[in-house]
Amino acid sequence: MSDPSRPSGRAADQMREVRIERGYTRHAEGSVLVSFGQTRVLCTASVENRVPGFLRGKGEGWVTAEYGMLPRATHTRSDREASRGKQGGRTLEIQRLVGRSLRACVDRGALGERTITLDCDVLQADGGTRTAAITGAYVALVDAVRWLQAGRQIKQDPIHGAVAAVSVGIHRGVPVLDLDYDEDSACDTDMNVVMNDGGGFIELQGTAEGHAFRRDELDALLVLADKGIGELLAAQRDALAR
Amino acid sequence: MSDPSRPSGRAADQMREVRIERGYTRHAEGSVLVSFGQTRVLCTASVENRVPGFLRGKGEGWVTAEYGMLPRATHTRSDREASRGKQGGRTLEIQRLVGRSLRACVDRGALGERTITLDCDVLQADGGTRTAAITGAYVALVDAVRWLQAGRQIKQDPIHGAVAAVSVGIHRGVPVLDLDYDEDSACDTDMNVVMNDGGGFIELQGTAEGHAFRRDELDALLVLADKGIGELLAAQRDALAR
Amino acid sequence: MSDPSRPSGRAADQMREVRIERGYTRHAEGSVLVSFGQTRVLCTASVENRVPGFLRGKGEGWVTAEYGMLPRATHTRSDREASRGKQGGRTLEIQRLVGRSLRACVDRGALGERTITLDCDVLQADGGTRTAAITGAYVALVDAVRWLQAGRQIKQDPIHGAVAAVSVGIHRGVPVLDLDYDEDSACDTDMNVVMNDGGGFIELQGTAEGHAFRRDELDALLVLADKGIGELLAAQRDALAR
Amino acid sequence: MSDPSRPSGRAADQMREVRIERGYTRHAEGSVLVSFGQTRVLCTASVENRVPGFLRGKGEGWVTAEYGMLPRATHTRSDREASRGKQGGRTLEIQRLVGRSLRACVDRGALGERTITLDCDVLQADGGTRTAAITGAYVALVDAVRWLQAGRQIKQDPIHGAVAAVSVGIHRGVPVLDLDYDEDSACDTDMNVVMNDGGGFIELQGTAEGHAFRRDELDALLVLADKGIGELLAAQRDALAR
Amino acid sequence: MSDPSRPSGRAADQMREVRIERGYTRHAEGSVLVSFGQTRVLCTASVENRVPGFLRGKGEGWVTAEYGMLPRATHTRSDREASRGKQGGRTLEIQRLVGRSLRACVDRGALGERTITLDCDVLQADGGTRTAAITGAYVALVDAVRWLQAGRQIKQDPIHGAVAAVSVGIHRGVPVLDLDYDEDSACDTDMNVVMNDGGGFIELQGTAEGHAFRRDELDALLVLADKGIGELLAAQRDALAR
Amino acid sequence: MSDPSRPSGRAADQMREVRIERGYTRHAEGSVLVSFGQTRVLCTASVENRVPGFLRGKGEGWVTAEYGMLPRATHTRSDREASRGKQGGRTLEIQRLVGRSLRACVDRGALGERTITLDCDVLQADGGTRTAAITGAYVALVDAVRWLQAGRQIKQDPIHGAVAAVSVGIHRGVPVLDLDYDEDSACDTDMNVVMNDGGGFIELQGTAEGHAFRRDELDALLVLADKGIGELLAAQRDALAR
Repeated sequence: MSDPSRPSGRAADQMREVRIERGYTRHAEGSVLVSFGQTRVLCTASVENRVPGFLRGKGEGWVTAEYGMLPRATHTRSDREASRGKQGGRTLEIQRLVGRSLRACVDRGALGERTITLDCDVLQADGGTRTAAITGAYVALVDAVRWLQAGRQIKQDPIHGAVAAVSVGIHRGVPVLDLDYDEDSACDTDMNVVMNDGGGFIELQGTAEGHAFRRDELDALLVLADKGIGELLAAQRDALAR
Repeated sequence: MSDPSRPSGRAADQMREVRIERGYTRHAEGSVLVSFGQTRVLCTASVENRVPGFLRGKGEGWVTAEYGMLPRATHTRSDREASRGKQGGRTLEIQRLVGRSLRACVDRGALGERTITLDCDVLQADGGTRTAAITGAYVALVDAVRWLQAGRQIKQDPIHGAVAAVSVGIHRGVPVLDLDYDEDSACDTDMNVVMNDGGGFIELQGTAEGHAFRRDELDALLVLADKGIGELLAAQRDALAR
Repeated sequence: MSDPSRPSGRAADQMREVRIERGYTRHAEGSVLVSFGQTRVLCTASVENRVPGFLRGKGEGWVTAEYGMLPRATHTRSDREASRGKQGGRTLEIQRLVGRSLRACVDRGALGERTITLDCDVLQADGGTRTAAITGAYVALVDAVRWLQAGRQIKQDPIHGAVAAVSVGIHRGVPVLDLDYDEDSACDTDMNVVMNDGGGFIELQGTAEGHAFRRDELDALLVLADKGIGELLAAQRDALAR
Repeated sequence: MSDPSRPSGRAADQMREVRIERGYTRHAEGSVLVSFGQTRVLCTASVENRVPGFLRGKGEGWVTAEYGMLPRATHTRSDREASRGKQGGRTLEIQRLVGRSLRACVDRGALGERTITLDCDVLQADGGTRTAAITGAYVALVDAVRWLQAGRQIKQDPIHGAVAAVSVGIHRGVPVLDLDYDEDSACDTDMNVVMNDGGGFIELQGTAEGHAFRRDELDALLVLADKGIGELLAAQRDALAR
Repeated sequence: MSDPSRPSGRAADQMREVRIERGYTRHAEGSVLVSFGQTRVLCTASVENRVPGFLRGKGEGWVTAEYGMLPRATHTRSDREASRGKQGGRTLEIQRLVGRSLRACVDRGALGERTITLDCDVLQADGGTRTAAITGAYVALVDAVRWLQAGRQIKQDPIHGAVAAVSVGIHRGVPVLDLDYDEDSACDTDMNVVMNDGGGFIELQGTAEGHAFRRDELDALLVLADKGIGELLAAQRDALAR
Repeated sequence: MSDPSRPSGRAADQMREVRIERGYTRHAEGSVLVSFGQTRVLCTASVENRVPGFLRGKGEGWVTAEYGMLPRATHTRSDREASRGKQGGRTLEIQRLVGRSLRACVDRGALGERTITLDCDVLQADGGTRTAAITGAYVALVDAVRWLQAGRQIKQDPIHGAVAAVSVGIHRGVPVLDLDYDEDSACDTDMNVVMNDGGGFIELQGTAEGHAFRRDELDALLVLADKGIGELLAAQRDALAR
């Protein structure tokens, strides 16, 4: 049932339309354009046969992420970080989150001494870019691993379980799923939830923008997140099966 | 009852000794040395009669935080960020968290066009530096506001409610309160919880380091956090009453 | 007639397929995805009501460009410039070229005190990214100007003439049009030509990669460029008429 | 015949006085002060027994260039790039051009695993600093190679052919040779031409500052450039014979 | 006899109270909180089993220093250097001075291929932070060397002689010892003197802030410095004997 | 009498040949090439009608200095600071010293709200670049002030007294004047002395490179410095009278 309080008219527990398009660009070992409604993120997975210094010689691989936003992905143009000469705190925070989330489903020993870098570049932003990035990067990662397997570079599948992410929040007093930009700007509490397909939590980041949130509100948000994650995991499975 | 699984021998729900020492340095409007066991953070609050560009002329104040770690606050020396030429992602993430947490208890209109900067510098690290920083910064903030009130620069108290933070985690399968460095390095799940004195959540940041955490584990962690926050709020009140 | 010397099998004077897709993203005043074969560049035009310091108060506008390449737009992943902390020389050179080329068709007085920034971000690279960027940015610029006219913010059309760009080169001794990556890597001379619809040259940048090129080779290259530019100008007109 | 339209009173095809002074400083393996009229550039060639990472172990050498302008080489003082913390786009563009131009006359295999760095520092600027830099750097490069030969460090002369550069432009409708600052600021088209002593083009960079330039104008400019390059190559030979 | 001209009421040749507290933090091999009156500097000595590139393989060690000031160590808050992205000239100047001063009492051959880094972080500033830093860093250095000796990592004591530093200046025409902030701001000449326990000078840095100083004034200042250094060397000996 | 211990064969109290050439470049208000033997520094004085923020509206001027070294001014090539992206500690230290030294002879009220920037760029280094820079910058400063007076922009001469600088050191046990590079590399003590024409000290910076220096050695060095400064002041007067 549509919720009159949501600017989009969605029901409180309704996700935006999710699309996952594999093979969006041709050079990367995995390349996925993920859309959560109007939010569109290009996630590429690049395989390199080297690891960071702290892992050299240990027989383990590494999975890391970088995040960027095209200057005019947003309503008004933001400065290009390359031109300003540094990545902002928000960017660093998001790319650390994406990296940790994806590492949570990878057996780094089975990967061998390789690095998979997940570049998540936002082409168009409408709220939820970090959750779209995690959800899409998982599919790109699987494609890169399949490429390694196809080339017989690794024997064992290093991926255990799937990972997806969604935002939830309290908007005008109502717990809602998958915030778009209008809701995100106006909501009291904003929470990003990363879960795996075993129903476990990988990351939980909740912030009270307005008033502090109570325990019962948290519980309601987690129920919504669980529903959304289920749908996202299904969308990932569908995309990977195509 | 002491818990044999904790390296420190503390009970699962036992905080480290907390000390809050006001007036630690003399120039700042608020200056607090906060200790959570061996973790020691110097929190100063500096008042300036100007606001960032985006607030100019709006009659509102600003509260912000910066975080640093002395190079040898840790077991092995880390590079000095000033010398490397940039703050790392972890530093930016923490100082954004501290700033958001403290802004959550301030009426910025009542503060007037002033900025209060909370500098949290870790003199010695043993786990939990960000939670100690938030807990100590709150006391420094109150002292700075009292200084403004004593000088009749503001009429109304801009502080509504108290804020404190604590970490919880699952260490060797056991949910425990207030992780020290040894526990933090070895634990499966690490969560930082920021709450106010109304029992509401300001920030919740949980990360699965090893396996994903289940809903019942989350519930157990939140009970521990609530107990710890209660003790920290009491310690803040005691310090402010002295 | 197809040329056996070209890896692509194209005739010496044959362009790759050119596509110009307007309205590719929704926030920018102009947003164009331009493809020269497998090279794909997203060009957005952003209007801002301010000018750089050196133009303030002069009643003139400014047109400028920025260029970026997604880390995995290329065969192997390149470092993200935002993460390295500076834009490389190649990037700066290209964005200066794009900016100069587009300013050549704008009456900055008629634009008024506004800046139009053309962001050219390469989603996929296969040679000729800078010429695709100029060709696509022209269309995005026209769309942004139409938006200004539709909003009655400007009275007079500030755009006089169209601008397009193409590369030519000498590949295995044969002058060819519109180099793709394989040709670009192997060719002796590489020249980028920017022209307007009056047949005039805006920019000419030729580089001998192997042996120096002779005057008669230059002449042959300019004939090819002229043909290619004609086709690109037609493609721009078609796209703008849709 | 002197041209009334040129501020300097020079004929349209007349170069400024060119001086090439070898051994200007004593530490560098090659050190040349080159003057094109009032433009004075110090070009030093430094030999080092190492190559950049991408060439290590390949038995080839490298030739590269850096360009700088003293803060008060110009009419008004510019910021020192070292102090601003980065080299500007114009600087990077010029030093890339100088490096490419000089590499075009060097057999890098015969050079062996060595780097020759050409530092071109403008002591006084009056237009044409990049063309003076290339012309002078060639002489410094030859001196450095002679030094290597004198020390029997290399057997074969790695230099094949000479390289020189000159600017041409259309000033008040008249094609002219070797633009000085007054002409450069006022001209419609500005073109830098790098050629070798075989009459071949190494680099051609033409920019329409005002109106686009036509094919017949380009032809006239190339004739002028050819004449100027001839005189510069003679000046280089004279200097090297002294 | 107290001097009416000094804001503090101290006699012209009277030091502030000096305290040297060893073991102030627990991780560093040497950790000293040194106070010259209200100036408080935390000096840690960190031992690492590596040397800078220019010393590798030479069998010699290195001693270096870094200096920092907490943002609110001063009367008004200064920007955090890590946040501004570079260390200022004053900081670099001081840390170079501290490093040179301490290297002057170390036999780097006896130290072996190790680096000892002396981090001097000012917790509270009231003039003389660099002289306090040198004086305290010496004690931290001795503690780190003792730690190496206790672990039988080195056989021979690499420390020959002690080093201490003090400031002197001409304040309202009167030569005085150990300037505090009020005196430093108002004095005509400011001199920092670093000496060893053999009465020799390690560093002498005098600056005329107002009028130039005469030879007889210099002589008077050196007598004062000699007295102050004697007291500081005694305080170091006392601290190390505790 | 020539001193057998000096590599140059100079007498212990003998300066190198000093040359001061005014009007070396044409754009700057003051432009001086100063040579101390083989050390050659180009010092330009640039006048701008603005002052740094901290002086705005106070009716006072500012005098500041910047220092640079061309990459191959030295025996082996050093990295270009503009390319490394920051000025090193040595550079910052020297330019702060030059700025302080020159400000010591200027009445900033008489200068009015103007900034004079002294750029000291080392074309060739052979020891003593900072003392040559100060000595030459003084002459450039005077020329810039005369230019202001000639243009009737200021009424009162803001320069009171002359400033010059020289190095002294203890080389193989012998106090010597004006160290060249060979001596500087080998000497035990190195001292830079800045004095005015009233015989007063502006700056005194002595460093024990090897053993600490004694009071009687200091005295001998100051006598030498006084002699050298006298000769430099005479050379400045001669140059300014030409």
